[in-house]
Amino acid sequence: MVKVGIVGGTGYTGVELLRLLASHPEVELSVITSRSEAGTRVDELFPNLRGHVDLEFAAPDPKTLNACDLVFFATPNGVAMQSVPELLAAGVKVIDLAADFRLKDPEVWAEWYGMPHGCTDLLAEAVYGLPEVNRDAIAKARLGANPGCYPTAVQLGLLPLINKGLVDTSRLIADCKSGVSGAGRQASVATLLCETSESFKAYGVPGHRHWPEIRQGLTLATGAAGKDVGLTFVPHLTPMLRGIHATLYATLISSNTGTDAELQTLYEQSYENEPFVDVLPAGSHPETRSVKGANTCRIAIHRPQGGDTVVILSVIDNLVKGAAGQAVQNMNIMFDLPETTGLTNIALVP
Amino acid sequence: MVKVGIVGGTGYTGVELLRLLASHPEVELSVITSRSEAGTRVDELFPNLRGHVDLEFAAPDPKTLNACDLVFFATPNGVAMQSVPELLAAGVKVIDLAADFRLKDPEVWAEWYGMPHGCTDLLAEAVYGLPEVNRDAIAKARLGANPGCYPTAVQLGLLPLINKGLVDTSRLIADCKSGVSGAGRQASVATLLCETSESFKAYGVPGHRHWPEIRQGLTLATGAAGKDVGLTFVPHLTPMLRGIHATLYATLISSNTGTDAELQTLYEQSYENEPFVDVLPAGSHPETRSVKGANTCRIAIHRPQGGDTVVILSVIDNLVKGAAGQAVQNMNIMFDLPETTGLTNIALVP
Amino acid sequence: MVKVGIVGGTGYTGVELLRLLASHPEVELSVITSRSEAGTRVDELFPNLRGHVDLEFAAPDPKTLNACDLVFFATPNGVAMQSVPELLAAGVKVIDLAADFRLKDPEVWAEWYGMPHGCTDLLAEAVYGLPEVNRDAIAKARLGANPGCYPTAVQLGLLPLINKGLVDTSRLIADCKSGVSGAGRQASVATLLCETSESFKAYGVPGHRHWPEIRQGLTLATGAAGKDVGLTFVPHLTPMLRGIHATLYATLISSNTGTDAELQTLYEQSYENEPFVDVLPAGSHPETRSVKGANTCRIAIHRPQGGDTVVILSVIDNLVKGAAGQAVQNMNIMFDLPETTGLTNIALVP
Amino acid sequence: MVKVGIVGGTGYTGVELLRLLASHPEVELSVITSRSEAGTRVDELFPNLRGHVDLEFAAPDPKTLNACDLVFFATPNGVAMQSVPELLAAGVKVIDLAADFRLKDPEVWAEWYGMPHGCTDLLAEAVYGLPEVNRDAIAKARLGANPGCYPTAVQLGLLPLINKGLVDTSRLIADCKSGVSGAGRQASVATLLCETSESFKAYGVPGHRHWPEIRQGLTLATGAAGKDVGLTFVPHLTPMLRGIHATLYATLISSNTGTDAELQTLYEQSYENEPFVDVLPAGSHPETRSVKGANTCRIAIHRPQGGDTVVILSVIDNLVKGAAGQAVQNMNIMFDLPETTGLTNIALVP
Repeated sequence: MVKVGIVGGTGYTGVELLRLLASHPEVELSVITSRSEAGTRVDELFPNLRGHVDLEFAAPDPKTLNACDLVFFATPNGVAMQSVPELLAAGVKVIDLAADFRLKDPEVWAEWYGMPHGCTDLLAEAVYGLPEVNRDAIAKARLGANPGCYPTAVQLGLLPLINKGLVDTSRLIADCKSGVSGAGRQASVATLLCETSESFKAYGVPGHRHWPEIRQGLTLATGAAGKDVGLTFVPHLTPMLRGIHATLYATLISSNTGTDAELQTLYEQSYENEPFVDVLPAGSHPETRSVKGANTCRIAIHRPQGGDTVVILSVIDNLVKGAAGQAVQNMNIMFDLPETTGLTNIALVP
Repeated sequence: MVKVGIVGGTGYTGVELLRLLASHPEVELSVITSRSEAGTRVDELFPNLRGHVDLEFAAPDPKTLNACDLVFFATPNGVAMQSVPELLAAGVKVIDLAADFRLKDPEVWAEWYGMPHGCTDLLAEAVYGLPEVNRDAIAKARLGANPGCYPTAVQLGLLPLINKGLVDTSRLIADCKSGVSGAGRQASVATLLCETSESFKAYGVPGHRHWPEIRQGLTLATGAAGKDVGLTFVPHLTPMLRGIHATLYATLISSNTGTDAELQTLYEQSYENEPFVDVLPAGSHPETRSVKGANTCRIAIHRPQGGDTVVILSVIDNLVKGAAGQAVQNMNIMFDLPETTGLTNIALVP
Repeated sequence: MVKVGIVGGTGYTGVELLRLLASHPEVELSVITSRSEAGTRVDELFPNLRGHVDLEFAAPDPKTLNACDLVFFATPNGVAMQSVPELLAAGVKVIDLAADFRLKDPEVWAEWYGMPHGCTDLLAEAVYGLPEVNRDAIAKARLGANPGCYPTAVQLGLLPLINKGLVDTSRLIADCKSGVSGAGRQASVATLLCETSESFKAYGVPGHRHWPEIRQGLTLATGAAGKDVGLTFVPHLTPMLRGIHATLYATLISSNTGTDAELQTLYEQSYENEPFVDVLPAGSHPETRSVKGANTCRIAIHRPQGGDTVVILSVIDNLVKGAAGQAVQNMNIMFDLPETTGLTNIALVP
Repeated sequence: MVKVGIVGGTGYTGVELLRLLASHPEVELSVITSRSEAGTRVDELFPNLRGHVDLEFAAPDPKTLNACDLVFFATPNGVAMQSVPELLAAGVKVIDLAADFRLKDPEVWAEWYGMPHGCTDLLAEAVYGLPEVNRDAIAKARLGANPGCYPTAVQLGLLPLINKGLVDTSRLIADCKSGVSGAGRQASVATLLCETSESFKAYGVPGHRHWPEIRQGLTLATGAAGKDVGLTFVPHLTPMLRGIHATLYATLISSNTGTDAELQTLYEQSYENEPFVDVLPAGSHPETRSVKGANTCRIAIHRPQGGDTVVILSVIDNLVKGAAGQAVQNMNIMFDLPETTGLTNIALVP
């Protein structure tokens, strides 16, 4: 059994993590901390957990956290970096679901997150927790940086093309749509039902924090360090609870262009051993609901009118494969458990 | 392992049954039939099942069904009654998720369902599959009549009061609200998103098929056979996918009236050994999302301003405790499995 | 032209009032105040008003308000009462969309609103602005108390029965469902999309502020001052933007019972001259969307199974007939304009 | 007064047209036809029209239609083309809201609409009814081809750039998102609430009928007849009733590139005299709800990170500026009425 602690657990990532961990056969949920809710029963805040989670939120206490095998941080950006060194020193492994350890360059981090990075020493050691790319490194990691939701959907969608050098990486477009849970559970006018339901909008077009993260991952895949890929990333707010749909546009480099069937085969082969990436049959249009509550990324490949523009459709549940589920997947790898343990539940349709 | 067949499985009850059975550790999913979709892979119709269900829909064939231990009917009303006798004769147990065997009186059935009952012989034998009422009979049953969604929420909400004779049973009111999945998956204008989203309405106020079913169950509980309870039942269509909220009004018979705390205790004791009925703390207001995807009924008891009107709030997921989950619960009981097997998943919030 | 000021206008009632007033042919929108948004263009906060409203929010200033013919208060409860005396003294008429002047008894007000009433002198003079009941008084009023949303739907639904003495007023039930906009536009976790979408719940069952308001109105209609009607009122939060559906239950007093057709006729005659109350044909089930954006209350009358329980279905748009539209209707009456001026827009379907 | 007939009026375009025409001061609604609903009152099918439209659906009858000044066709594709010649011969003007006269090349039409074009004679005469492009021709037209919803949003978004030759027209991308009402009011599984709510998906990626329409319009604007623009068009189904959001990507031709401010100015000047196109301030993100129910297109221009990719955000209500509202706008122009007559209602927020 892995003895697990959670720091911060009152947001949507937190409750999702609790849902997954509560039914994970190899996990003992040891402590969950929240300054604001200390003393409140977890299932009072989240009645769906009644009968499944018997803990109270506790004020953060190094002693109890240090006694864990693994601590998940489901905290705002900038929090984990303050506590991680002590936990690692105590022999505790850490998975941060926030952004503290996702970017390798502390200056880029500081620019996008609006504060200096407080733990630059660990940036090199931290492993970017996208198992389909970094499985071996994750297995040995003490500190996992769980990817962002958009970066997960976009990278899984584009990597097969980029790994093979098939597309012009100076002109990639990621038009992404997310459910509102991606915006978190803070009191805010912008995410009220009455502000977001029955409406659709882009946001962050001038710049979004997931842009450097995606760019870092795709650039790494090109193998051309130092020459960043060209990426236009436009996120949109969609009137639904969960789900990300990434619509990805890339231009085939003509000399390398294969047939449509070859593209389909490329994707199928790229992911044939991946338990959580599902390449749909040619001609498909994945729906976000087909992964609602599940740790799956479903992908379809199109090449409209036989032109040189490839259109990739990639869907995930932002709270599962885009956050808590991927974190549990990372945990499974880090603790040498079968990777799918606790992650086999089926998407809820309708 | 229980060898299971499903007849009809292209509706929402069907896909939910597949979701639950596919991860049930004691079930071998043997055959699923559909005339209209014969030859189609199940996971082509329902991509959420990709990787979990490897069957095709088959044309109905007595031979394969007769080889099952249990057949679920997730068919329109009037279908199961035609095949059940043969299956029982072949030693197959049956659980009907439609209404064919819910009402004991075939004339009442004919009146409300608009056709004569085609299998009256079995009405006496069929067991109404509400485990909280009929557990022992279900355990011995060959033929289970899975309750309707509204009847489940309403009966679980009112039975403790009626069993104790605390309320005037001549004037019960059940104001119920259901998500749209209760209306099924047939092509129809009335349940288009554009007809049901962002709107709320009552329907069937002059009469709804669940009214005689609820009345039968409540009357039985009064012990006064022959004297039907007085029940006003108003269902409403709510702009959401899943969930039933029953708001139940009953008048306390003054001489028997206890305190509020006694009412709370009555409910807690009535359900203390029930794995799927959760009585919330006094003062609570259950949300339907707290049971989304879960086989749980959550109940709260109120007595506004200390008057003689009791208000019971009872929520279920209409597709789970109101249909497929309760059917699996019945299966577990009929096959002497632990009652919660395969039914422990946690509601998806948000 | 009526020179109009609005105090507080950053909530949903405010933007709806602006939408209606901006296209009202007899209104000159003179000033709109908001402390928090002073200096912001109104159409920056509400881009739907671009091209229609050319004002900025201004800090409250008695001088500009005193120069108006009419001031609407779209403020939190307890605000209007502080400024109304000065405005009336300056010859300005006032319509308060909050609750300050709805209850006649200041002690009841204090009990339900949690603060002493700060302007008891004007309670007697204030006219409860339900035109279908108080049209003549409104015409002469200086101070109008715009009714609450639930009270509008419930009173219009029950008054014909009560006025005629047809039902037992000791046991009325109002099961009401509201869209989320009724909860306002404050930053709050409880009304986030992710907390309210795809879920349904009751709230305030032990007591809601609209309960004494409804009771006051219905009691008045019984003519039996001093003997309050017995009312159970249960509001529910519905996952949609706008709309209230009141499902009302009353017991016919047998000796006075008419036929179903007589009940239908009673309602039709009660409202035959009312421009904003629409009695649907017998057997109808009004949808809230049929009044979305319109100042209409649609009502249907049922008597299930010919019993003695009457079920009234009454729908309004909580922001229009339940708030801003009714306020404009009151304005029209107070300023001797045709009552439907500026209120003839048609509900938006779908 | 313009005497107006409507052929087909039972879909969402039809009810929206009725909503707009019923309050249009210069229109006399003379006849509305529907084979399937002949004899039904219009307000029985659409209760939101109660009190506003006093017609019954009539079986199609040339005599009554020929007596109109203008007939709108709100019919499936391929219907209008059968009746238009007779109506024009009778001196009646026609606006077709379907696709029959949108494409100039009958072979392209036949390819995309799956049937031969039945009225090729009139293709040259028919005027594509996008007023911002063709106002003068519309004013003189007998036959207007009302644009598709996606084509309206995309063309208004891209035309200023293309007219000025600023972007590479061989590589345009239109990533478009539509509410479900765009799919019509036919009984169908695919557009049930339970199939479309809480989900998001692309559709028609291999090819959609609006692709040739958009391409025709944009190609015309390049002035390079014969050399079609290169366009990738991906429509998506969004879980909401109304609204289209077009996210448009184009690459600046470097030698012609202006500053961001110049791009903003270009759009503002392009549309400064257009009553129904609103260019938002630099940095804005238009929401579809800001045009819900209104005949407005709101546009914002972005150039992320100062690169050579321009991102245009363009929103309309698919049923208004994307269908019925634009049809009324065309009518106003054809009958020399002020262009905004009957189209000044404000978007409904929330």
